[in-house]
Amino acid sequence: MEFKISSTKKQELTDITEEINEIVKNSEVKNGLCNVYVTHATAGIIINENYDPNICTDFLKAINKSIPEHNNYLHDKIDNNAGAHIKSAIIGPSETIPIKDFSLKLGTWQSVMVADFDGPKQRTVVVTIIKD
Amino acid sequence: MEFKISSTKKQELTDITEEINEIVKNSEVKNGLCNVYVTHATAGIIINENYDPNICTDFLKAINKSIPEHNNYLHDKIDNNAGAHIKSAIIGPSETIPIKDFSLKLGTWQSVMVADFDGPKQRTVVVTIIKD
Amino acid sequence: MEFKISSTKKQELTDITEEINEIVKNSEVKNGLCNVYVTHATAGIIINENYDPNICTDFLKAINKSIPEHNNYLHDKIDNNAGAHIKSAIIGPSETIPIKDFSLKLGTWQSVMVADFDGPKQRTVVVTIIKD
Repeated sequence: MEFKISSTKKQELTDITEEINEIVKNSEVKNGLCNVYVTHATAGIIINENYDPNICTDFLKAINKSIPEHNNYLHDKIDNNAGAHIKSAIIGPSETIPIKDFSLKLGTWQSVMVADFDGPKQRTVVVTIIKD
Repeated sequence: MEFKISSTKKQELTDITEEINEIVKNSEVKNGLCNVYVTHATAGIIINENYDPNICTDFLKAINKSIPEHNNYLHDKIDNNAGAHIKSAIIGPSETIPIKDFSLKLGTWQSVMVADFDGPKQRTVVVTIIKD
Repeated sequence: MEFKISSTKKQELTDITEEINEIVKNSEVKNGLCNVYVTHATAGIIINENYDPNICTDFLKAINKSIPEHNNYLHDKIDNNAGAHIKSAIIGPSETIPIKDFSLKLGTWQSVMVADFDGPKQRTVVVTIIKD
């Protein structure tokens, strides 16, 4: 299964928990694993709190302080998005989440989000479900 | 399968390799994958050396230098733990480890640890085993 | 399935996409998941662009700025490679990638790479394939 989402800014976290939960429910798999994967080298998947969306703002501020957008990166002469590639490499393109009783076994404060570091862009999310 | 562990400090790495190995052994799965998942947005799972426990101290020192605990984060006005959320988002809530011949296929220097960034707290670890 | 690769420098990214794709093809699994795992505590797996190999150089520069190689780490008195352990813990030893129609479902710009932070060394990569 796959679906597409679109970011609207250069850097943005998009909550896809509902989309993933819907796919899990429709799979009729009771127990197993759900892998959520973005097929891009300037985005990633994170799992964290989105009840207070300020956490997304804080996350982006902190990762940009840790990994500056520009710092004489060699790839910036070609595509000017090295900072987005580096953040994507660190965050990683996927997370694998347990399925229990036909649902994602997320904690109360865990949402699944696409982190786009080089938007605005349309991004493809691939969801793979494996039975226990 | 799930179990609980308790951290005793604000930031702490807790080795859960033995607990995971026991669950793998009891599953009687010869070859496959073992997903280790914490259901929390201020903790994560890391795999690294714990033979010299100084590495855990060094890890926490370095990640706090890279992602400061406080830096005018917006979420700090609400819950004062934005730094823990950001570290959790970067580290991620899970690792997926091969099972070979009824055991985790860890390297000699690899231990599985819960990284708590907002303890002391009780944390839930979910272990999912998939047959090859 | 496992294979070995050798790094030639202290820090190096080695592209293993072809090796993984070959293993996936030979498995004759049509749809499922492929877990790629290094059994080492001073290396990790990343997925990113390698078409412009400068991105690998930029990645190493940025991660060394964020996590300095030396900073009075306690483990440096024992083995002088704490920086490599910390980077390995953050990057993580594995990635799990969807398999679709007998191939890795990588994006156009995604390559699978071993990040060695303490080379030159021979490293073991374990590949586990699970049917959907």
